[in-house]
Amino acid sequence: MLTPGSTIGILGGGQLGRMIALAAAELGIRVHIYAPEADSPAFEVASRHTVAAYEDEDALAAFAREVDVVTYEFENIPAASAEVIAALVPLHPGVKALSVTQDRLTEKDFITSLGIGTAPYRKVDDLSELESALQALGRPGVLKTRRFGYDGKGQAIIRPDEDAAAALASLRHAPAILEGFVPFTREVSVVAARSSDGSFVAYDLCENTHRHHILDVTHAPARLAADVARKAVEAARLIADSLEYAGVLAVEMFVVDDGTGGETVLVNEIAPRVHNSGHWTIEGAQTSQFAQHVRAISGWPLGAVGMTGAAATMTNLIGDDVDNWRSIAAEPGAHLHLYGKGAARPGRKMGHVTRIAPLA
Amino acid sequence: MLTPGSTIGILGGGQLGRMIALAAAELGIRVHIYAPEADSPAFEVASRHTVAAYEDEDALAAFAREVDVVTYEFENIPAASAEVIAALVPLHPGVKALSVTQDRLTEKDFITSLGIGTAPYRKVDDLSELESALQALGRPGVLKTRRFGYDGKGQAIIRPDEDAAAALASLRHAPAILEGFVPFTREVSVVAARSSDGSFVAYDLCENTHRHHILDVTHAPARLAADVARKAVEAARLIADSLEYAGVLAVEMFVVDDGTGGETVLVNEIAPRVHNSGHWTIEGAQTSQFAQHVRAISGWPLGAVGMTGAAATMTNLIGDDVDNWRSIAAEPGAHLHLYGKGAARPGRKMGHVTRIAPLA
Repeated sequence: MLTPGSTIGILGGGQLGRMIALAAAELGIRVHIYAPEADSPAFEVASRHTVAAYEDEDALAAFAREVDVVTYEFENIPAASAEVIAALVPLHPGVKALSVTQDRLTEKDFITSLGIGTAPYRKVDDLSELESALQALGRPGVLKTRRFGYDGKGQAIIRPDEDAAAALASLRHAPAILEGFVPFTREVSVVAARSSDGSFVAYDLCENTHRHHILDVTHAPARLAADVARKAVEAARLIADSLEYAGVLAVEMFVVDDGTGGETVLVNEIAPRVHNSGHWTIEGAQTSQFAQHVRAISGWPLGAVGMTGAAATMTNLIGDDVDNWRSIAAEPGAHLHLYGKGAARPGRKMGHVTRIAPLA
Repeated sequence: MLTPGSTIGILGGGQLGRMIALAAAELGIRVHIYAPEADSPAFEVASRHTVAAYEDEDALAAFAREVDVVTYEFENIPAASAEVIAALVPLHPGVKALSVTQDRLTEKDFITSLGIGTAPYRKVDDLSELESALQALGRPGVLKTRRFGYDGKGQAIIRPDEDAAAALASLRHAPAILEGFVPFTREVSVVAARSSDGSFVAYDLCENTHRHHILDVTHAPARLAADVARKAVEAARLIADSLEYAGVLAVEMFVVDDGTGGETVLVNEIAPRVHNSGHWTIEGAQTSQFAQHVRAISGWPLGAVGMTGAAATMTNLIGDDVDNWRSIAAEPGAHLHLYGKGAARPGRKMGHVTRIAPLA
């Protein structure tokens, strides 16, 4: 159990690292941020920071020796780097969570092995595999690189009239998977936390809408029958248990018709970290996902996850959406969060705003 | 109006500066902390800091030139230092608020001049003034230094059998005032915010209990008739208007019988800053006093002040109270705040915990 005054090392200096750092500070826990970019937003709220590449094993070892536990804000930490750290200090979530979720094929195989449904998928290493995958799964299908994809990057939709070879070329022939089309009606996510001792809590499910492949709005609670929501949380718990997980994780799911007039969920993706679809918990839940993550990786008891209002709506401020900060700041009860980033480039997450519907 | 990315300079590096810094970070505003102690808790969450004395006018000027507005977490900034800063950059709250509240005699004269009630008081510069003050106000009375008193420091109670000269000596013959005994039933405070444009908001009044002269527990809302609460808020507003105030202020008041079976309030003290009795607003109100202060000194619209629950109770963790952090961390829904301080010396504010009673 980490005592107050201990230091959490965080790989990654973006808004997620920044918000973990703010939550840690509230609990009297120090933070050391490790990131390659000299102007990382998280540096500004951390007691220490290191500017170095994620592949710099000497810098990683020095960093690991100065902290009491290491976590991360993104899952594309090189495996060798994770091993360097894990040999010196606890890494939460651990190497297993990283290795499973870094690769879409490994991830899908893992989920399937737990008896949890996903979109149908096939491994695609070359054109002939892609063609037989299209044959098996039909069109449209989504070709996705196995590694390093996020926010729609590393993806190509293959429609009935589109050329398979061109799609493969657009992903630079990287190892990929083809996912069959899922006629989902909504996207939801389970944001949950597990401790090393096996304790587990899940926030109310939330419903996510995307714009240009980037999360736009999250609304909690999701519109979902209680038994479907329970099944979704059970899937998240099984995933977390199987990964021997410590920390917050998000499991993104598709809601689909179950063919008998009801609904069911298919797991789309596991994020082994705090997640954009959990930002509403800062004001919308008794314990924010960031404080929860700090608790979980520090061996503290998990915090209460009840909602503070009847509903919460989180809207991302992407690119020049952030220019609306004045009107949001003037809106009674709107909770504005800005990440301290410089230029508002298109597609860049600059902040978010959360609105809570009070209990009646 | 300060834009995101601007920098607030804060004089003082304790828990109040730290919590202002955390609130500023959430709004994408940078913070530069100025404090004489090299291990100031607020440094850890600030993008910049300066270690220098409050009397070091060169360091103050350099600091002022690097920030967009200056504020402070304590009111004992030397007048000359405040002038140095105010000549270079906006200082909020301003020089007038500082000069009035730094001196108990000036403060009481100011409050009285507004037609607001206080405890009866007399200036005491020497023993003969003390003796005539005791004659006029009776015993027991409280002798207080005019300057630099806080948490009961710089005070001496003079009971019927106690020696006036000894009391004066215990305060090292500093310029003082004698306050007549006020048979108060409760202590309450108004935590409020005013902007330079005259807009004003006040949180629900809260009720404070002290232990060894240090705030122990704050409970909101205070038990107070609506018309008395309204009168208290009107007094705070009149004070803020008269000081041409920008920022959060706290007005501490005594609740006394009004002699006709009802109650009334007398102003005890004005704190021209965020205040310990406003910590409950972090979870208990729609906008925390810290975010509110950032808004007010930045020229942003003031935030909503409604309570998030039916009641909030804030308990200070003083000295080794903080050793209970484990049990508080395990208490469902308790909001633990630790300030990142080292040794838990007796009387030192190490953290606080807030408990919210949900709306029924």
